[in-house]
Amino acid sequence: MADRADPRVVLLAGGVGGARLAHGLQANLGDRLTVVVNTADDIERHGLLVCPDHDTVMYTLAGIDNRDWGWGIAGETFAAAEMMAGYGEESWFRLGDRDLATHVVRTSRLRDGMRLTDVLLGLQVSLGLRARILAMTDEPVRTEVRTDAGWLDFQTYFVRLHQEPDVRELRYRGLDDARVTPEVVDAFERADAIVIGPSNPFLSIAPILGVRGMREAIDAARARGGRVLAMSGIVGGKAIKGPADRILASLGHETSAVGVARQYRGLVETFVIDDVDAALEPAIRALGLDVIVADTIMADDAARARVAGVLLDAIGVLGSGLTA
Amino acid sequence: MADRADPRVVLLAGGVGGARLAHGLQANLGDRLTVVVNTADDIERHGLLVCPDHDTVMYTLAGIDNRDWGWGIAGETFAAAEMMAGYGEESWFRLGDRDLATHVVRTSRLRDGMRLTDVLLGLQVSLGLRARILAMTDEPVRTEVRTDAGWLDFQTYFVRLHQEPDVRELRYRGLDDARVTPEVVDAFERADAIVIGPSNPFLSIAPILGVRGMREAIDAARARGGRVLAMSGIVGGKAIKGPADRILASLGHETSAVGVARQYRGLVETFVIDDVDAALEPAIRALGLDVIVADTIMADDAARARVAGVLLDAIGVLGSGLTA
Repeated sequence: MADRADPRVVLLAGGVGGARLAHGLQANLGDRLTVVVNTADDIERHGLLVCPDHDTVMYTLAGIDNRDWGWGIAGETFAAAEMMAGYGEESWFRLGDRDLATHVVRTSRLRDGMRLTDVLLGLQVSLGLRARILAMTDEPVRTEVRTDAGWLDFQTYFVRLHQEPDVRELRYRGLDDARVTPEVVDAFERADAIVIGPSNPFLSIAPILGVRGMREAIDAARARGGRVLAMSGIVGGKAIKGPADRILASLGHETSAVGVARQYRGLVETFVIDDVDAALEPAIRALGLDVIVADTIMADDAARARVAGVLLDAIGVLGSGLTA
Repeated sequence: MADRADPRVVLLAGGVGGARLAHGLQANLGDRLTVVVNTADDIERHGLLVCPDHDTVMYTLAGIDNRDWGWGIAGETFAAAEMMAGYGEESWFRLGDRDLATHVVRTSRLRDGMRLTDVLLGLQVSLGLRARILAMTDEPVRTEVRTDAGWLDFQTYFVRLHQEPDVRELRYRGLDDARVTPEVVDAFERADAIVIGPSNPFLSIAPILGVRGMREAIDAARARGGRVLAMSGIVGGKAIKGPADRILASLGHETSAVGVARQYRGLVETFVIDDVDAALEPAIRALGLDVIVADTIMADDAARARVAGVLLDAIGVLGSGLTA
């Protein structure tokens, strides 16, 4: 299926790292990119459903992401959040005014009976996205982390406690009842390649892969000739963003691209690591994976497109001009 | 009960006019003022419960009302509203960012099972109000107006259509099932005087008076010696604010303070009219009402306190210094 003139790619993504790669892929693929996004870090705040990973990817693909902060919307203001704090609401999960609008509209449409997938697609269309972002499932799934202080919901750990406690164990409440959507199945059926983004393997990718029907859909795509690649979010032993390195360590894994690659063994055929980790190539090949070594740091738009080009070149769907 | 050293007053109020008088009364009475506010113009927008009359009174008593606009909060911004419009939401009922926070918090607490009365009191405490504002009832009541184009919900008529259609008939959906709250009953039981604010008799005051138990509570207060007064919101044949003059006309009533006074016959003993309507005094006395003629225009804080003083002087609870 590779080398088609109009290749289709499905990207599995969490928040910031996945969003940056999605942005680069969208620049190359336009509406032939579908992102399947983690929803296990969704949270209800002030009675509103917040979907942090989806919204990060959506704002990034819409070109309105706040690059100074790495989250939220450019030029965001916080008048509503200040007012809510004045009303005595917990304020550790700070919502900007524009971002709040997203949550209000999403929650309203869900209460009107729409499916999460349809609600999210509607928001994306309004913001002019070319690519599509699909919720990994329409059912609620919630990540919980066990720390030495007990089980915490994910955002309490991630935002309120600044990812400081060691993570001893993870669980995904609701995952057993979560099923893939028709849209996700359709995206995989039409995919020439599947890319696992440089997102947290435990917090972002594991819940996506755990949705009933997801692995089967990926396996079916592979059986039809689709390529399956992953990119390491650990570079030089450190997470580009977030707590992936510390979680790998506290769960007893190697804190390196090798540790990440090991999570995807049997699922992906090709693993992309950064130039600084070139020495790890033999260890990853020993896991049975092909390895691509490239500059994977996505600091600006050009870098995002370039990294996307590395992947697309590996997939074989773009012949020239975009390789690293 | 008049002439007590610590008089208690209950004000029945709609939006802007009632809010201004409430502000003047609060300046004189502090926590001895209770406002019973119309909730029949409440509306659900974007899945959130908006209580326009309550919020106008609350923001005014908190001193954060936007006096340039006559609605909303001073210094208000509209980032969320612009974003919601971008998502394709109807934007004729425009919500400011701080105001949106009020609706989000209110809706969240109601969904958590709190009573409307308790939710509203909590918001008021957070904003530092000295007076209390009580919802006329905890049950949902919704005003609908019949125009030549058929029945409309109130805010469609009021905001979306700018009160332009003639009002042929009014109804208050849910009013038959609405009961007074223990807090409202308690306020009347402790009241030395009851004041009907210069609010729209049909849109603001009629639904309050129609709540089951409301008239009985007022009658009981009167039987215990409480005074009952009303103030005209029609001055010189025109509504100070809003469509009261046109509604009086289209419903076949006299468009004057006399037309308003006629609505309250049998309920109030004293009616306050503006200096410019002094010539109407005999016609109102002919209805069996005492009349006070005073400057009732509440353009600024001093005027609000002065008008409140006229009422309190009439009630007999303040002996001097505050009369017009």
